[in-house]
Amino acid sequence: MTVTIDGKAVAQRVRAQVAAEVAALDPKPGLATVLVGDDPASAVYVASKRRAVREAGMSDHHRSLPATATQAEVAAVLEELAADPAVHGILLQLPLPAHLDPDALIDRIPAAKDVDGLTTRSAGLLARGEPGLRPCTPSGVIELLESQGVKTRGSRAVVVGRSALVGHPMAELLLQHDATVTVAHKHTADLAAVTREADILVVAAGVHGLIGAEHVKPGATVIDVGIHRTADGLQGDVRRAELDGVAARVTPVPGGVGPMTIAMLMVNTLRAATMDGP
Amino acid sequence: MTVTIDGKAVAQRVRAQVAAEVAALDPKPGLATVLVGDDPASAVYVASKRRAVREAGMSDHHRSLPATATQAEVAAVLEELAADPAVHGILLQLPLPAHLDPDALIDRIPAAKDVDGLTTRSAGLLARGEPGLRPCTPSGVIELLESQGVKTRGSRAVVVGRSALVGHPMAELLLQHDATVTVAHKHTADLAAVTREADILVVAAGVHGLIGAEHVKPGATVIDVGIHRTADGLQGDVRRAELDGVAARVTPVPGGVGPMTIAMLMVNTLRAATMDGP
Repeated sequence: MTVTIDGKAVAQRVRAQVAAEVAALDPKPGLATVLVGDDPASAVYVASKRRAVREAGMSDHHRSLPATATQAEVAAVLEELAADPAVHGILLQLPLPAHLDPDALIDRIPAAKDVDGLTTRSAGLLARGEPGLRPCTPSGVIELLESQGVKTRGSRAVVVGRSALVGHPMAELLLQHDATVTVAHKHTADLAAVTREADILVVAAGVHGLIGAEHVKPGATVIDVGIHRTADGLQGDVRRAELDGVAARVTPVPGGVGPMTIAMLMVNTLRAATMDGP
Repeated sequence: MTVTIDGKAVAQRVRAQVAAEVAALDPKPGLATVLVGDDPASAVYVASKRRAVREAGMSDHHRSLPATATQAEVAAVLEELAADPAVHGILLQLPLPAHLDPDALIDRIPAAKDVDGLTTRSAGLLARGEPGLRPCTPSGVIELLESQGVKTRGSRAVVVGRSALVGHPMAELLLQHDATVTVAHKHTADLAAVTREADILVVAAGVHGLIGAEHVKPGATVIDVGIHRTADGLQGDVRRAELDGVAARVTPVPGGVGPMTIAMLMVNTLRAATMDGP
């Protein structure tokens, strides 16, 4: 029996916990979303983040800039938000229009308000195991593993993919949870031999249907971070159907990791409003 | 036949290259070593770094503070050096006296002068694969591997140990050199099974004689970062004698990784003097 991990239910529970904590706070935590340009997908993502903010009882500070905004104009908005004591978290929606330098803009966000965990300083704090805000998607994966009682300490974990947004911080978090962690990527020779070592296999390669039964050790927990729009609907990096009777647990796409990302954004905003430093 | 990698010879070559490049520069790159207190081992290390600076034709800016120096006093010295245009690299010798907070002091060093690669910002730049100064010991290991023509791309690399100083940045550098990287540590179950997967095995556990023949795949390259003072002289984390006829190559202790650390400090100081940013 392979369990399908219900990410929606876990995300709901996390968001309800955040809302309960927020209810006891005054003033309320505030999240500022910054949207540059008019990419329709980005607009949808930002709208659903803002809805989650309001549902959690937090205050919604949104800024919208035209696609023609200059680097200096976006930077000025970020600095104003950085200085605003009502704003505890700042999220710069990516991707930005091509004429802007995303890394330089992200680094304008103070680490204490970096609810996406994407600044150089946040990456350094994570690498050094110091307190700080962690990227939402990998944090959501850790939360999913914990919700299922999956033991990380001493387990073999394999992360496929090494992006700054997911794969890389995912490996860091698993390592800090005392797993023996392997990072595989496009140069990995014999990927299946590597992934079959995994008790916990996190697939964040961005390659549709990359992972099938031949890649999975019987009894493993498989987390699929991929998301691809296909003629048959949303699908992941994992060929889910093949894993029945092989994996112990697997996340579906949609309804697995996806809902956790927004839930962890709420957790990070609450943390940013209540923690000291970094 | 197991080759013993001659770290002294490689380090000598690297230092000669640095000296040749320095000879063409005016003004000369400057390294400031900061020693707090009178730990005899630290004094010896600082003296040998200063000697290497002079041998490379660079300028030696040394600061010595009493063991009773306060956090603010050490910070003031670091800020003065940070502002001094003749000082291109700053090295705060560790460990510090127990009443001082090393992380907070290290973070006073601007990333552009962080020749030890230990600041939070340098760790973040490394994690994100952005240009920056990297810690000397893991950089020295990469240099040793390259000197022996060991291929990293697509190889399986295992790092034993996850310290901020060596194990962690070592794994990062191997990953950036496109190896499939596994980090093992004290919670790893069946260490020998994990290390036997390695084409490149870097041992930075700080445990005398931890690794023997049973841990090594035939034909592997084994890099021993350990250093332990024993009745039989300096020894490493690897039981070197057992690896004859098993490993393809192994670094000795002493004379392997050790000499590379100072050589890479010279490389970093030269880079700090000549690069833009970070």
